[in-house]
Amino acid sequence: MTLDPVLSRIDSDLEAATDRLFDLLRIPSISTDPAYAADCDRAADWLVKDLQSIGVEVGKRPTPGHPMVLGHIDGGDADAPHLLFYGHYDVQPVDPLDLWDRDPFDPALEDTAGGTVIRARGSSDDKGQLMTFIEACRAWIAEHGRLPCKITFFFEGEEESGSPSLIPFLEEHKELMQADLALICDTGLFESRVPAIITQLRGLLGEELVLKGPDKDLHSGMYGGASINPIRVLTRILGNLHDDQGRIQVPGFYDGVPELSPELAKQWKALEFDHATFLGDVGLNTPAGEQDRSALEMIWSRPTAEINGIWGGYTGDGFKTVLPAEAHAKVSFRLVGHQDPHAIRENFRAWVQAQLPADVTVEFTGHGASKAGLMNTTHPAFEQSRAVLGAEWGHDAVFAGCGGSIPVAGHFKSILEMDTMLVGWAKDDDQIHSPNEKYDLESFRKGIRSWARVLDAVGS
Amino acid sequence: MTLDPVLSRIDSDLEAATDRLFDLLRIPSISTDPAYAADCDRAADWLVKDLQSIGVEVGKRPTPGHPMVLGHIDGGDADAPHLLFYGHYDVQPVDPLDLWDRDPFDPALEDTAGGTVIRARGSSDDKGQLMTFIEACRAWIAEHGRLPCKITFFFEGEEESGSPSLIPFLEEHKELMQADLALICDTGLFESRVPAIITQLRGLLGEELVLKGPDKDLHSGMYGGASINPIRVLTRILGNLHDDQGRIQVPGFYDGVPELSPELAKQWKALEFDHATFLGDVGLNTPAGEQDRSALEMIWSRPTAEINGIWGGYTGDGFKTVLPAEAHAKVSFRLVGHQDPHAIRENFRAWVQAQLPADVTVEFTGHGASKAGLMNTTHPAFEQSRAVLGAEWGHDAVFAGCGGSIPVAGHFKSILEMDTMLVGWAKDDDQIHSPNEKYDLESFRKGIRSWARVLDAVGS
Repeated sequence: MTLDPVLSRIDSDLEAATDRLFDLLRIPSISTDPAYAADCDRAADWLVKDLQSIGVEVGKRPTPGHPMVLGHIDGGDADAPHLLFYGHYDVQPVDPLDLWDRDPFDPALEDTAGGTVIRARGSSDDKGQLMTFIEACRAWIAEHGRLPCKITFFFEGEEESGSPSLIPFLEEHKELMQADLALICDTGLFESRVPAIITQLRGLLGEELVLKGPDKDLHSGMYGGASINPIRVLTRILGNLHDDQGRIQVPGFYDGVPELSPELAKQWKALEFDHATFLGDVGLNTPAGEQDRSALEMIWSRPTAEINGIWGGYTGDGFKTVLPAEAHAKVSFRLVGHQDPHAIRENFRAWVQAQLPADVTVEFTGHGASKAGLMNTTHPAFEQSRAVLGAEWGHDAVFAGCGGSIPVAGHFKSILEMDTMLVGWAKDDDQIHSPNEKYDLESFRKGIRSWARVLDAVGS
Repeated sequence: MTLDPVLSRIDSDLEAATDRLFDLLRIPSISTDPAYAADCDRAADWLVKDLQSIGVEVGKRPTPGHPMVLGHIDGGDADAPHLLFYGHYDVQPVDPLDLWDRDPFDPALEDTAGGTVIRARGSSDDKGQLMTFIEACRAWIAEHGRLPCKITFFFEGEEESGSPSLIPFLEEHKELMQADLALICDTGLFESRVPAIITQLRGLLGEELVLKGPDKDLHSGMYGGASINPIRVLTRILGNLHDDQGRIQVPGFYDGVPELSPELAKQWKALEFDHATFLGDVGLNTPAGEQDRSALEMIWSRPTAEINGIWGGYTGDGFKTVLPAEAHAKVSFRLVGHQDPHAIRENFRAWVQAQLPADVTVEFTGHGASKAGLMNTTHPAFEQSRAVLGAEWGHDAVFAGCGGSIPVAGHFKSILEMDTMLVGWAKDDDQIHSPNEKYDLESFRKGIRSWARVLDAVGS
C-alpha cells in the first residue's frame, strides 16, 4: 500500500478532521473535579462512536472512576506488528478562568503571529494529540480499506487525576491488551520544531497536607503571640523544602537518582538546548533548579519538589486579623531514575511530622505515585520512526527526555511487559494546564501525516 | 439623681433592649467587603434613628468610605464632664461560613452551659458592646429625663477595615468633637469574670503582598525544575519571619519595644493569669510566642507578626501539577511601646525584597498602620469607674493590658488631645472574628448596668 494518497487525503480532509476534534473539545471532561463526571462519560461515548465510524470494534469499559475506552481493528499482513495506541480524553481544570480570553470549552481557530492555532482546554493535552492518530487511521482505511498493522485503541479518562483505575484495569484485561508495542501521543516537539522520540520520563508523587492548630479561627488581637498559627508553621516547613542551592531536603530523597551517562550527556549537549528562549517565552530568564545542573537536566533528568497550591486564613478582599485553625498545601515531586515514590512519600510525611511544634497536627492525602520511565530504544520501531519523521518536519528526529510524567508507560512495561514509544507534536507554548491552552493547526496536520508515515514504516 | 431606679428600669427593659440589638445585628455591615457597602449605610441609619429616639441631636456624616454617626446630648450640671463615646457598627467577614451553626445575621438567644448567649456576627464586636452604653443612656433619660453628663456619640463603620476615613474625619471635625474624656466599649473582662479598665493597647500594621514569577501558570512537567515557583519563594520568605525562639526577624523590628516596668510587672503578676485555661479553651496548651516571655506578655506587651491569609496555585478538589504565576499573603504586625508602624512597613518591604531570587517581583498593599496606645490612668474617671464596677460584677475592677488594637484611642490623643478610657464586657470565648460569635446576655445586662454606674460616678 502506498503512503502518498493517504497523505493527500489527510490534507483534503483536514477541515472535517478539525470539526471532529472541536466536537470532542466541547465536552468539559475535567476528571479531577467530581462535578464533571457526566462530561467525562460523554467524552468516552464520543470516542466509542467515532472509532466505530472507522470500523473499530470498540466499547466503553466501566471503572470505579471514569470509564476506559478499549477497541481493536485488524490490519497489515500476518507478520504485521500489533500496536496499542494510548491517549487520555480527560483534561485539566480551567481555573483561573478569568485569565482565559475565551470559553475554554468553546474551541475556535485563531490566527496568531505563530500561525493558526486551535484554542481550547485539551486542544493539546491530550484530545488534539490523540485525534492525530485516529485521523491517520481514518485516512489509511478510507484510502486502502485497511491499516498496515493491527491496532488496539486504549483511552483513559483519569490521566489528569492520578489514574486511580488504571493499574487494576490493566491487570484485569492483560490478555485483551497484548500487543508488540505501545504508542503514546502526549509529548511535544523538541524546541517546538524538531520531532522528538521520548526516551525517558519523570515519575510523579502528589501529596496534600492540612495543618491544624487551634480548634477554631482566633482573633489575632486577643490570641496573637500566645497562640500558634498553622500558616506560620506551614510556611516554615515548606520554606525548608529546598536549600540555598535548590537541593530538596527530604531525607533520602536523592536515593536512586542516577548521574547522566556520558553517552546521553553527549547526545543532549548536541541538542544545543536554548534555555534562554525556553524560559524567555514565559517571562523568565534564570534556571531555578539545582545550581550545579544544566537547564536540560533540571527539566529532564533531575527530580523536583513543587508546591502546586497553598491556602489558609482570610483570602478575600480587604483584611482580617485572623489566626486560622487550619492551613493547607498541595505538594508534588517529579521523580527520576530509580527513586521510589512510596519511600519518598513516607520520608516526606515523617520529615513534616518531625518539624511540627506543640499544638499542631497534620493530615496527609496521597494523590498518585509513579516511578520514572526509561524507554527501550532498541525496539526497531524507534529507528523506523526516526527515519521517516524528518521528511514531515524538515528536521531529523531526535531522541529526547521529557520532564513530564506519563505513568502509563511504566505500567505497560510492568503489567503488560510491553515497550512504549512516545512521540508527540505539542509545542512549548501550548500552555497545557494553563489558561488559553492551544494546539497549532500545523501540529494537528503534520501530526496526522506523521502518524500515517509511522504506520507505513512500522507496518507492512 | 439616684442610680437604683435606673438599674431597675434596665432590668425591666432588658427584653426590649435585646430586641433593639437584634435589629442592628440583622444588618450584615461587613466593612472590608465592598459587596456590603449598602448594609454598612443601613447600620448607620439605624443608629441615627435609635439615638434620635432618646433625644440625641444626631446625623450621618459621609466619608469617602462608610459613613460616621455623630450626635450630641446635654446633661448634668454646668460642671458635669463632657464624655465622648465611641463604638463601631461594622463587623468582620463571616467566612468560613460552613463553620457557623446558624446564619451569622439571624441573631438568636441560645441557652448554653455557660448561660444564655446572643449568637450573631457583631454580637460582641462591637454592636452588643456599643448598645450597652446607648441602653444605659436610654434608661437614665427615661428615669430622670436627662443624663448626668454631656455626651457626644461617635460611631464608625470602618474599624474592621483599617479606618481609612477616621483621621481625616477627626481633623475636619476637631471642634465639634471636643470633650473631656473619650469612652470606648470594645474590650473585655479579664479572664471573663473581672471588670477591666484597659491601660495599654497594641498597635496594628497590615501588609498584603503578591509575588509574581512566570507570566502565566505553567505545567510542572514541562517547566518543573527550571522555572521559579512563587509559592516556593513565598513560603521560604515567610518561613523566615520568626526564628526558632519566636523572635521576629525583620531588621529594626524591636526598636522602641520597652521592657515591662517593675510596677506593671508586679500588677500583672498579681492577676495570676491562667494561660492553661486561656489556651485550653481553644484547643491549645503551649504559649507559642517568644520563648523567654510570659503568656500575658505575649498577648499584652510583646509585638507579633502573623500571616493572616495565604493563597496561590490550585486550591480545589483533587490535584493539579501547576507552577502558578503568582502567590499571595496577608501579614499583620501587633505593635507595642514606641514601635513606628511606618518604619516597620518600610523595613518589612525591604526585608522581603532582599530575599527575592531572580525572576520574582513583589507588590505590596498597606492595610492600616497604628501605633500602640498608653492610657492616662491619672484621669479621675479611671479611679471613679474602678470604684463602682466592683459592685456590679462582684470582683474589684483591675487595670489590664489588651493585645488588640484600637487605633482610635491614639487618634483621640494625637488629634483631639483627649484621653480615653476603655472598658468592656466581652468574654474570652465570644469568638469575635470567628464563626459562631456570641455575647453573653450577662455581659449585655451587666454591661448596661455598669455604664449606668459609671455615668453616675463620673457625672453629677
